[in-house]
Amino acid sequence: MIPLCIADVARLAGERLPQGVRDFVDGGSGDESTQAANRTALDRVRLLPRVLGGTGEADTSTKLLATTAGMPVAVAPMAYQRLLHADGELAAARAARDAQVPFIISTLSSCTMEEIASVGGPVWFQLYWVHGRDTVLDLVRRAEQAGCEALVVTVDVPHMGRRLRDVRNGFSLPSDVVAANLGPAPVSAAHTRQAGSSAVATHTALAFDPAVGWDDLAWLRGQTTLPLVLKGILDPRDAERAVDLGADGVIVSNHGGRQFAAAVPSVTALPEVLDAVGGRCSVLFDSGVRTGMDVLRAVALGADGVLCGRPVLWGLAADGEAGARLVLELLHTELREALLLSGCPDLAAAGELRTVHV
Amino acid sequence: MIPLCIADVARLAGERLPQGVRDFVDGGSGDESTQAANRTALDRVRLLPRVLGGTGEADTSTKLLATTAGMPVAVAPMAYQRLLHADGELAAARAARDAQVPFIISTLSSCTMEEIASVGGPVWFQLYWVHGRDTVLDLVRRAEQAGCEALVVTVDVPHMGRRLRDVRNGFSLPSDVVAANLGPAPVSAAHTRQAGSSAVATHTALAFDPAVGWDDLAWLRGQTTLPLVLKGILDPRDAERAVDLGADGVIVSNHGGRQFAAAVPSVTALPEVLDAVGGRCSVLFDSGVRTGMDVLRAVALGADGVLCGRPVLWGLAADGEAGARLVLELLHTELREALLLSGCPDLAAAGELRTVHV
Amino acid sequence: MIPLCIADVARLAGERLPQGVRDFVDGGSGDESTQAANRTALDRVRLLPRVLGGTGEADTSTKLLATTAGMPVAVAPMAYQRLLHADGELAAARAARDAQVPFIISTLSSCTMEEIASVGGPVWFQLYWVHGRDTVLDLVRRAEQAGCEALVVTVDVPHMGRRLRDVRNGFSLPSDVVAANLGPAPVSAAHTRQAGSSAVATHTALAFDPAVGWDDLAWLRGQTTLPLVLKGILDPRDAERAVDLGADGVIVSNHGGRQFAAAVPSVTALPEVLDAVGGRCSVLFDSGVRTGMDVLRAVALGADGVLCGRPVLWGLAADGEAGARLVLELLHTELREALLLSGCPDLAAAGELRTVHV
Amino acid sequence: MIPLCIADVARLAGERLPQGVRDFVDGGSGDESTQAANRTALDRVRLLPRVLGGTGEADTSTKLLATTAGMPVAVAPMAYQRLLHADGELAAARAARDAQVPFIISTLSSCTMEEIASVGGPVWFQLYWVHGRDTVLDLVRRAEQAGCEALVVTVDVPHMGRRLRDVRNGFSLPSDVVAANLGPAPVSAAHTRQAGSSAVATHTALAFDPAVGWDDLAWLRGQTTLPLVLKGILDPRDAERAVDLGADGVIVSNHGGRQFAAAVPSVTALPEVLDAVGGRCSVLFDSGVRTGMDVLRAVALGADGVLCGRPVLWGLAADGEAGARLVLELLHTELREALLLSGCPDLAAAGELRTVHV
Repeated sequence: MIPLCIADVARLAGERLPQGVRDFVDGGSGDESTQAANRTALDRVRLLPRVLGGTGEADTSTKLLATTAGMPVAVAPMAYQRLLHADGELAAARAARDAQVPFIISTLSSCTMEEIASVGGPVWFQLYWVHGRDTVLDLVRRAEQAGCEALVVTVDVPHMGRRLRDVRNGFSLPSDVVAANLGPAPVSAAHTRQAGSSAVATHTALAFDPAVGWDDLAWLRGQTTLPLVLKGILDPRDAERAVDLGADGVIVSNHGGRQFAAAVPSVTALPEVLDAVGGRCSVLFDSGVRTGMDVLRAVALGADGVLCGRPVLWGLAADGEAGARLVLELLHTELREALLLSGCPDLAAAGELRTVHV
Repeated sequence: MIPLCIADVARLAGERLPQGVRDFVDGGSGDESTQAANRTALDRVRLLPRVLGGTGEADTSTKLLATTAGMPVAVAPMAYQRLLHADGELAAARAARDAQVPFIISTLSSCTMEEIASVGGPVWFQLYWVHGRDTVLDLVRRAEQAGCEALVVTVDVPHMGRRLRDVRNGFSLPSDVVAANLGPAPVSAAHTRQAGSSAVATHTALAFDPAVGWDDLAWLRGQTTLPLVLKGILDPRDAERAVDLGADGVIVSNHGGRQFAAAVPSVTALPEVLDAVGGRCSVLFDSGVRTGMDVLRAVALGADGVLCGRPVLWGLAADGEAGARLVLELLHTELREALLLSGCPDLAAAGELRTVHV
Repeated sequence: MIPLCIADVARLAGERLPQGVRDFVDGGSGDESTQAANRTALDRVRLLPRVLGGTGEADTSTKLLATTAGMPVAVAPMAYQRLLHADGELAAARAARDAQVPFIISTLSSCTMEEIASVGGPVWFQLYWVHGRDTVLDLVRRAEQAGCEALVVTVDVPHMGRRLRDVRNGFSLPSDVVAANLGPAPVSAAHTRQAGSSAVATHTALAFDPAVGWDDLAWLRGQTTLPLVLKGILDPRDAERAVDLGADGVIVSNHGGRQFAAAVPSVTALPEVLDAVGGRCSVLFDSGVRTGMDVLRAVALGADGVLCGRPVLWGLAADGEAGARLVLELLHTELREALLLSGCPDLAAAGELRTVHV
Repeated sequence: MIPLCIADVARLAGERLPQGVRDFVDGGSGDESTQAANRTALDRVRLLPRVLGGTGEADTSTKLLATTAGMPVAVAPMAYQRLLHADGELAAARAARDAQVPFIISTLSSCTMEEIASVGGPVWFQLYWVHGRDTVLDLVRRAEQAGCEALVVTVDVPHMGRRLRDVRNGFSLPSDVVAANLGPAPVSAAHTRQAGSSAVATHTALAFDPAVGWDDLAWLRGQTTLPLVLKGILDPRDAERAVDLGADGVIVSNHGGRQFAAAVPSVTALPEVLDAVGGRCSVLFDSGVRTGMDVLRAVALGADGVLCGRPVLWGLAADGEAGARLVLELLHTELREALLLSGCPDLAAAGELRTVHV
């Protein structure tokens, strides 16, 4: 089967991955209803296309924070990509580079941020607030040094969501997949297989500071001139607070249904966050994006762009760098076509499309 | 099985057609959610019948633009009908003639418009905006000459929607099915089978002008006195612009779910288009009509009539001209009964029926 | 299996009836979506029970028009009940008598109205407007003579809905089942089996006057002092007109989904009819009642009572008079329990229950 | 399988219990639609988590009426727990004690209230209004004596809901399971197996006073200084009346779908009850709680806490005291995580979370 859409890639990945890794990638927290609700809510957003645009062109390019991008998509930060393919983040980052989209390096990447940055595409750094401001600052300085164009602080993981699939599988990292940015030592917990528990969750509980608060973010804001983005915002009151803090962007996300198990669908939360922000910072959308039509949905609702996560992992699993590239090409092709078919020469026009909730 | 409803005809057609053609007819673009949403939305429109009409008669006749019609239905423009039956458009046009409904000749008809017009029923011409205003004008002049009573310009295909079934099937036209109005040459791309791509889409990309805009339509308006109808309007702002341009009608349509893959269900878009138009031009409804009850739904919501597409192709596939005739007879029988059972002596009364969205 | 609810009785009936009769009873018109929508809409009506009623009693008795009834239920008028059991309407009427509920004799009953009335329970007569005011008047006079306590004029059958199951089955009446009130002659069409058509529909088309109108009803109002009820009202404008005519009641009904195939669910139409009528005449509810909880739903919404149809036929099919009695006992038991559990000592209290649409 | 969530425990219990007991526990009244609607409605309540709480702590402790509790959960009063495990209520009460949550002793407990109270955890007493104020008062005095910290009067069982599973099974209590608080005699009816009827329902009909009313409650209010809670309130008018009576709390409940078969989902009724009460008494939520996320849903909507019923029985069935403990631990773990992941250091913060109905 030649994959014609991301659903095809997901099927291929599902066939190729061992169950433990597949479940680690595909699973959500609790009853996984948040994941399902993300898709249901996206499917119900329908658009009113315009006609007779008069150009026959559709320019998908945009600016995401300080980064010029070929389309309003960034590769979401995702841990341990070498689980999917030996080339891990390097393969995915090359695909992102070729698609001209930011690759967001996870704190828990299995290649170092410096290696990934050396691929040559635009990169952002995602920060998990690990214990110790010194360690945090060290990661930030390395990110600045490596040329990261934005700093994405994940704010929805004070604690890892309980992902039952990983617990059932007693999932742990294989020895050759490490948290490369953190050095091999602290991640040893993630390698210690234990029946009835997720080693990755154990490691997270050890490594992350669960008490990170707005004060810490204010401190961080003072430490760097990189564009600062808060990932995992759903409540408009938090979005406003992020703006007041001086954040350059917020990412409306429920972590793909992997964290808070009773969360609102991400796209349901988007309009009020946009209202609260009122254009004072960038707003990106995350959680559930599977097609270029989804990208257009988010843009039509007012988002500046989206993050795409699991699909890139499925691409890696299906065919390494080529698979990741295919995923991004599919998104681009679909988005471009969706713009053409909705009469939008560019993303600004797309922002004027009307949406209906069916 | 004697087919008692269009669903029966669809089943028969499904049994008789080779997969490639069946998929070409039945498929939609992207995840095919627009198609499904069309039906769901129609099914949710329920009507409040009136009682004691006092006549026992139900007059389904109406005027569709300049054409007197036996019922408020036109056969939608559909390409290459010889794929379904050797007699192709001639068979379907004869059925339409006998049902006294306009047959809308596709630019991509597999019999020439002159042959189809010679069948003797009311015909309209559907224009795909091919490259070159001269070629466009030539088609329009031929349509005028052939006695077409309206000119339907399809405005939702600047580019062909990505129909995965055709791509998977590597669908191409058999050599004996040609775009008869355009001559055999330009359509050669549509005959070139290529694994992993739709030859029909390739041809479209070559033949159609993706940059057609409102200016082109204004120019066309100046070139002909035929009633001018824009097909593929969903946004009320476009409907207003069509009125301002001097269009005689708009067709609210999402191309049966074959074009923009995240489109609003057609019937969901209808009320606002009707409001925007405010009676200043005709409004026809297209996409998803499968029963006479659907025709009544559209009329009760305020439409002047509907287009019916795939069912006529299923009729052709099931039994050629007789099959197409059966489909139109079923629609007429069902519509007539629906009028009787909703206490409406005619379509004007039907326009006063109340609707509920359940 | 001992049947514990009407769904159990339906299953039993389904096992015992030949397909033709089962389909005649269970089928609806067109795509049968109206039938399905009736149930979905009823299921979504949820009630807020009250507590601490303080009596431990639940009085289900009421007055339905001029008839004192043991519960707010009448047996709906249904044709040809000898199809279900040799005792036909006599069996059902005996069950109704014992349950103290009105049995509504159909114009098309397979026992004569006089025989049915002689059973001794309260009976009403349902009038199909057959050709000729003399014939109509003759039926009305016979009904008066026989002691019928109300006259129910069915206004939603100017023409019989197209019930595909009957057409597929080529359904016709067996020779020993006749329209007893009309004499054997006129119903011969209903006995003439013809492939691809419903003999019952053929007979209806011959026997009924499709042009019956408000004037006819006004004439009828002047001919009898019996309480006059119009069955098959869904639009509040018709309900008002019925009141203006001097009707004593309206029955909100879509004929169990057997007539107009795109009709609103009956319970969805009920509140606006109640508003329009404003207490100026009785309002009964019909179409979809399957449990005592459904009876309470209708009463809580404001109806004076309900008609129950198919369940009684299922009872007849399952076990003749005993089966019909069981059905009415189940309804009574369930209604009584529902009143007790919603804290209502009587139906007046039930009318004050709050409803929620989920 | 190690049970990781209550759904796992339910599966285990389902495997271990004989059908009669399983159906007695799992069944609802009538068509069991109320049960299903409870879950559907809860699943549709989605929350907007907050971020950057800044503490990393989540304090689940609270006060439920006069009782200090480790989390806002009480074990719902449930009859005859020795059906599930030989240790019955003693096992469950020990689990509740260890989880620091109130165990609500049923009037129909199969161990005496004194035995259960001697376990040493906080206990409340649930009163079914049996015949005779003397008997009622005797139960209340024993409850006071035994150290019960609240008196929960169930007001939604003037009569037992018709649970078809029990009737089909001819369910009766085994001889070694008795209504220990009432002495062996009166419950003999519950031990008399009879085909086609539920012995438990028969006993209820004999033992309970169906005529209990607001006057009785007023009298009871005057008899005891224990916090008085009314369980089974859904209509806000009843909630107000409870407040006026001097009740200390109301429990919004439809008895887990076991009583009034057309009841509103419990969570749908909650907001209006909260509005009506306006903080003048405690409001607890019951019916459908299966996860810690559900506890948080109720708290976010404004409830002071929840009752959890069937899950504790499943725990007993799966593994006695350990199983019940596991269920309460799962709820606690999930609630604690849900608080952490929604940025709430405590339940007061949880009360400020916004909810969305999808």
